[in-house]
Amino acid sequence: MRHLHLTLSAASLLLASSIACAAGTTIPDTAVKTAEQIRNKAMHDDTAYRIAASLTTEVGPRMAGSEADQRARDWALAKFKALGFDKVYTEPVTYPLWVRRSEHGVIVAPFPQPLVLTALGYSAGTPQGGLTAQVVKFDTLDELKAAAPAGIEGKIVYVGYRMERAKDSHGYRMGSAVRTAGAVIAQSKGAAGYLLRSAGTDAHQRIAHTGVTGFRDPAKAIPAAALSNPDADQLERVLAYGKPVTLKLDLDCGVVGEYTGANVIGEIAGRKHPDQVVAIGGHLDSWDPGTGAIDDAAGVAIAMAAGKLIGDLPQRPDRTIRVIAFANEEMGLWGGRAYAEKHAGEVAKFQLGVESDLGAGPIWRMSASVKPEARDAIAQIAAVLEPLGVAYDAKRPGGGGSDLSQMHGKGMAALSLNQDGTKYFDWHHTANDTLDKIDPKELAQNVAVYAAFSYMAAQADGDFGSAPGAFADDGERKRGEAADGKVRSDQPQVDAGLKGVQTSAAK
Amino acid sequence: MRHLHLTLSAASLLLASSIACAAGTTIPDTAVKTAEQIRNKAMHDDTAYRIAASLTTEVGPRMAGSEADQRARDWALAKFKALGFDKVYTEPVTYPLWVRRSEHGVIVAPFPQPLVLTALGYSAGTPQGGLTAQVVKFDTLDELKAAAPAGIEGKIVYVGYRMERAKDSHGYRMGSAVRTAGAVIAQSKGAAGYLLRSAGTDAHQRIAHTGVTGFRDPAKAIPAAALSNPDADQLERVLAYGKPVTLKLDLDCGVVGEYTGANVIGEIAGRKHPDQVVAIGGHLDSWDPGTGAIDDAAGVAIAMAAGKLIGDLPQRPDRTIRVIAFANEEMGLWGGRAYAEKHAGEVAKFQLGVESDLGAGPIWRMSASVKPEARDAIAQIAAVLEPLGVAYDAKRPGGGGSDLSQMHGKGMAALSLNQDGTKYFDWHHTANDTLDKIDPKELAQNVAVYAAFSYMAAQADGDFGSAPGAFADDGERKRGEAADGKVRSDQPQVDAGLKGVQTSAAK
Repeated sequence: MRHLHLTLSAASLLLASSIACAAGTTIPDTAVKTAEQIRNKAMHDDTAYRIAASLTTEVGPRMAGSEADQRARDWALAKFKALGFDKVYTEPVTYPLWVRRSEHGVIVAPFPQPLVLTALGYSAGTPQGGLTAQVVKFDTLDELKAAAPAGIEGKIVYVGYRMERAKDSHGYRMGSAVRTAGAVIAQSKGAAGYLLRSAGTDAHQRIAHTGVTGFRDPAKAIPAAALSNPDADQLERVLAYGKPVTLKLDLDCGVVGEYTGANVIGEIAGRKHPDQVVAIGGHLDSWDPGTGAIDDAAGVAIAMAAGKLIGDLPQRPDRTIRVIAFANEEMGLWGGRAYAEKHAGEVAKFQLGVESDLGAGPIWRMSASVKPEARDAIAQIAAVLEPLGVAYDAKRPGGGGSDLSQMHGKGMAALSLNQDGTKYFDWHHTANDTLDKIDPKELAQNVAVYAAFSYMAAQADGDFGSAPGAFADDGERKRGEAADGKVRSDQPQVDAGLKGVQTSAAK
Repeated sequence: MRHLHLTLSAASLLLASSIACAAGTTIPDTAVKTAEQIRNKAMHDDTAYRIAASLTTEVGPRMAGSEADQRARDWALAKFKALGFDKVYTEPVTYPLWVRRSEHGVIVAPFPQPLVLTALGYSAGTPQGGLTAQVVKFDTLDELKAAAPAGIEGKIVYVGYRMERAKDSHGYRMGSAVRTAGAVIAQSKGAAGYLLRSAGTDAHQRIAHTGVTGFRDPAKAIPAAALSNPDADQLERVLAYGKPVTLKLDLDCGVVGEYTGANVIGEIAGRKHPDQVVAIGGHLDSWDPGTGAIDDAAGVAIAMAAGKLIGDLPQRPDRTIRVIAFANEEMGLWGGRAYAEKHAGEVAKFQLGVESDLGAGPIWRMSASVKPEARDAIAQIAAVLEPLGVAYDAKRPGGGGSDLSQMHGKGMAALSLNQDGTKYFDWHHTANDTLDKIDPKELAQNVAVYAAFSYMAAQADGDFGSAPGAFADDGERKRGEAADGKVRSDQPQVDAGLKGVQTSAAK
């Protein structure tokens, strides 16, 4: 019963619901009806869009630890209160402070010209006057792994891998591995610097995609940057002349200390079981080149708006709806990991959880990691979501999303709510991550899903199986495969690779 | 007879050709056949694409007067020679040297955040420490024209006009006027700075479109820049809060002296009338953010490849094919104006001329400014081009293209060969003007058109009416309307507005 191997139609879902055994978790009919009403209302509600517009306009870019980090937290506290949340508070998150001051790159020889690039998270800065070195090119991460250090030492390694576009975002698994693991491998073989073709699907935009590397020890970091796709094409054309190609990188960036930010949390308090929580959220930080609209004002807005819709009901739900705006997801799930460390002991109190962090495209698939006795309740949720275009895949585990994957790792029952990622990686981690990339109707569909499922989970008769150490197997497998199938789940570079693909890895 | 008011089918074209009166200009049958062969060969020839790749890869950005200007001229001289041109030479062009060192902009209040912008040609630099001032917004150029100076003095004027996308590029007429005339009007009313929503059709790309202003006297220039479209959206959202909005512009740019570059010219020498020339070309300079692929490596490549195809024939054409790679088109047709000044006295020797400067989209329409007695020869040319998808519009005058409009202004008979501009202004004057925006097949279609018409014009029995002062009326009207219907043709800002739309203004 753990993994249903049949396609569930709406009819069979109802049947499954009605014949659920007494010991199983179920959602009361009244809760299902209310969830349907919330769902329908959400589809015509623009609260989430207004929240996303507010955050991206009033705060704009908000890189973890930057001056805007504090303004973003102030914004979140004020917004939760304005939306009528019962309890609003923060929990501190401490992490290394990486800063970006400036970044330039040029081809020095044979054809002098500037390159559009962006430094990667935890990249080292270049020496005063820049780093000038010859380029050595690899087409794939495997080629780099197989290469002898002799051809790499003192050079700038460039990996030209082209990330694949996909609705289920599976292309990011390798795309992000080239960035995270590639930089570490290049450093380990003596490279002076590391460059990749941006992990992005916008083949024709002269905009580079930033993102974190696997560097954690500043002493072992080297200068690392991503070229825009057209610049990668240009570099490859120059290399094709067969002459030595020299680049100069001038990156003023690096780790400058430690910073303590915070997860910002708002709660719609449970009426019957206030200590039992449905956990949803997004991350508050963003990369600096854009205004963090799809990554992840959208996720914060979806969760906040879902909480508000439930808060607007005549009475509070049975359990608490906890909306978490996580700190510093981008440089290694720092907010999610701090949260999981702090709350691991209460994992059994977490009814169900999932985070939104793949933009604002419509949710098209749901899967769940829950105890077998809660599968019928999941089927009831699926039946309410089906009219929104959400297919229930009973064979796949749930992952909880980026930061909440960490709480799932501690044993929290979790969903995956997969958003359509077809266009997401055109804009992800770039200057192009701006409000105009959010379709208000698609965003509203996300809110409808989050509000309906959260309410049903809060009203369920019974739990979904959260317990210390639960779901360890599927969680471990997912996290282990997310980056490149080899790195371990306790390494931050996995986290960076995990985002958006955590549920694809179980294929 | 001057303007045919009927639609000409292929059949009627043949008829027109066969009944042409003895006094009229005609193309011999053998020349028509050879032109058809050249046309067909060109469609399968990648010479132009290889030329465009060579210029954009080996030289890259080549702003007039920059270090790369000399490298671009060296490239052009070498390329003409390698392609087998008979005579290769330069003619000096002197112009003010404007340089761009750096450009930054931020919203200071109420919501601090960076803006993506680019300084405009002939913009003044900001004072040390930047220019901080309040913004005053206008939706259109007319609103700015109508505004009282009292509301503008000491402020940064922002015009939010959105340029319209169109196959015939007519949207650029107003788009460029907002940039060229708008900056001058703002300065004349006491503005401290000028900002516009980029004159571009890419609504969602965080890339700003540069281009020239109407400033010519550095003493009367103010800092002027273009915001990317998403940044313009953002600024307008911030303004909509109704609070005073303060920006800081930090532009390190300005006119620093004078520079002498050169038009680079290659000729396939005429066998019978070497002093009579068919003039085609593009411009060698580019703006600095991109690699100048569509603007205008494409035009240079089309003309060079057309010349080479004719040069590859068993014998030289009757008249000379002169390919001109113009200097500094971008900051006010400096190459074209210098050329016209130098060669005005020989205008009657210019058989026919037209420049390619609207990218690499397919040519879809031809029109001509020729003497009435040459209309039949134009119809013969049109019949050869028709299978390429080129429609002959006998009602519209020809304009000669950007730089060669100046020679047309002196009395040169001229064509317009309108390229499909639907996508051109997504990339025009931006970092996104890179080789990947050129479709090799579409580029080849352009070469087929240029090679076929040039050869037929070179072989014609008779001329097309070039004479001092000829076509003054339609030329004047076109140029006068190109920018905003008011500025005069002898003002450089007209030139800037002229490009790409010179034949649309006669509507």
